[in-house]
Amino acid sequence: MIKVYTSSVIDAPADQVWAHIRDFNALPSWVPAVADSRIEGGAPSDKVGCVRNFNLKEGGNLREQLLALSDHTCSVTYNILVSPMGVENYVATLRLTAITDGDRTFAEWMAEFNCPPGREQELTDEIGNGVFQAAFDNLKRQLGRR
Amino acid sequence: MIKVYTSSVIDAPADQVWAHIRDFNALPSWVPAVADSRIEGGAPSDKVGCVRNFNLKEGGNLREQLLALSDHTCSVTYNILVSPMGVENYVATLRLTAITDGDRTFAEWMAEFNCPPGREQELTDEIGNGVFQAAFDNLKRQLGRR
Amino acid sequence: MIKVYTSSVIDAPADQVWAHIRDFNALPSWVPAVADSRIEGGAPSDKVGCVRNFNLKEGGNLREQLLALSDHTCSVTYNILVSPMGVENYVATLRLTAITDGDRTFAEWMAEFNCPPGREQELTDEIGNGVFQAAFDNLKRQLGRR
Amino acid sequence: MIKVYTSSVIDAPADQVWAHIRDFNALPSWVPAVADSRIEGGAPSDKVGCVRNFNLKEGGNLREQLLALSDHTCSVTYNILVSPMGVENYVATLRLTAITDGDRTFAEWMAEFNCPPGREQELTDEIGNGVFQAAFDNLKRQLGRR
Repeated sequence: MIKVYTSSVIDAPADQVWAHIRDFNALPSWVPAVADSRIEGGAPSDKVGCVRNFNLKEGGNLREQLLALSDHTCSVTYNILVSPMGVENYVATLRLTAITDGDRTFAEWMAEFNCPPGREQELTDEIGNGVFQAAFDNLKRQLGRR
Repeated sequence: MIKVYTSSVIDAPADQVWAHIRDFNALPSWVPAVADSRIEGGAPSDKVGCVRNFNLKEGGNLREQLLALSDHTCSVTYNILVSPMGVENYVATLRLTAITDGDRTFAEWMAEFNCPPGREQELTDEIGNGVFQAAFDNLKRQLGRR
Repeated sequence: MIKVYTSSVIDAPADQVWAHIRDFNALPSWVPAVADSRIEGGAPSDKVGCVRNFNLKEGGNLREQLLALSDHTCSVTYNILVSPMGVENYVATLRLTAITDGDRTFAEWMAEFNCPPGREQELTDEIGNGVFQAAFDNLKRQLGRR
Repeated sequence: MIKVYTSSVIDAPADQVWAHIRDFNALPSWVPAVADSRIEGGAPSDKVGCVRNFNLKEGGNLREQLLALSDHTCSVTYNILVSPMGVENYVATLRLTAITDGDRTFAEWMAEFNCPPGREQELTDEIGNGVFQAAFDNLKRQLGRR
């Protein structure tokens, strides 16, 4: 089991960041790598158990299932059902915490998964930097105070 | 802020107990005090943010909102929007954990709320014993191995 | 029960901040309000259960007991045995989390306590701002990159 | 990273179980596989950072370091510095939670570690059953009512 942990600070209130990312179908609006997304079966995107089906801009289809959603702790947990990445048992959690000093947001995104031997470093970098940090950087641009 | 904490052991696998109680609209099937329940607006009962509207057998209507639902940690968090109990800022979490020794379930139900001075003990007993433990006792009867 | 929560960002690595604040007897070096401190009975300051006995610059003696210390999660939990503040059942936790983006530190300090009716707001402000945030501000000056 | 999780129920109050196992140097009194133990350097066994040095009855020396100790959550976290088991990055946590129904104790012991490919199942069984569950079984005999 590989663990990836990425955390950042968004210069916007946690309520505002949560409103921006809570929608499990909203990846295209804040994760740069994602081209499009739909919830399978037309379910509401905050129905626990729903599946988002999305495509990457560079090609590749993913299906991810919503395992947990909390408006109480501003967090979302999901797993990967299908992806081109070659990972197994992938479960990730994204969580926001209020920074009272400056009314900002501490954002954490962590994942655990198995992968073929030898691909650990490549996948850790691709997921932790290429996806998670890239998305945080985008949130900073989209929501950060100037 | 008053804190109530009740925990018990159900002699059935955690997956089975979770399947029995996951439905936010299912209180009448396992909480003895509840007469009926419906989800307002016809929303799915696992849509985070949905409101269950239910009546007690002894009279009294409650509206509770689903704040968090996790199939990952087998937990549910909700608050009270309307109730006859005279509590404020009520937030509760119910969580199941697998007991590997004997394939049983550790069940915890905890609540925090404010109430008028002098009613702390009465409400702690009514909620912790009258509702939470009574429901656990019922689960033990419904699901426990004989 | 009153809850106070203060969080901030220190522009220094979490390991460095933890090394600075881990010592339960080190309050005078980073909490501005504290004049001096000693561990009762000459115990090591990382012995769980030890008591720090310290005086405030503006006068007032406190005795606080170490309930938990973790080098794993960079956190410390303690309660107040004696203080001039008029609080009861006071338990506080200070925790550091690494911010991978920029190699900084997310610092959280939270307390729960009971107090006489009418003093809630005053104590929340005194503890959350006067003690916790003032200490974080000092850490930012002491450890922050330029 | 391999994860091992073992949980059980001890029919004794959590305070009593905690008093029995809190001492980081007390393994010989409740973990059947352990022959003897000492804290290196004569440090108190509740000093976070101390190292216990102990031998197994079947032979084999281990050195484990106390990473966290909490009288607040009745938990202890430690890692393995030296062992004959062939594990790496081993970190384990033992935690007790009160079961209010019957005044019993929910005990959890979990470990994470790396190991050579092919030894995952053997080590999971040896640690989860041979050490953790065996110790819980012993606690049930030592402290359980009747």
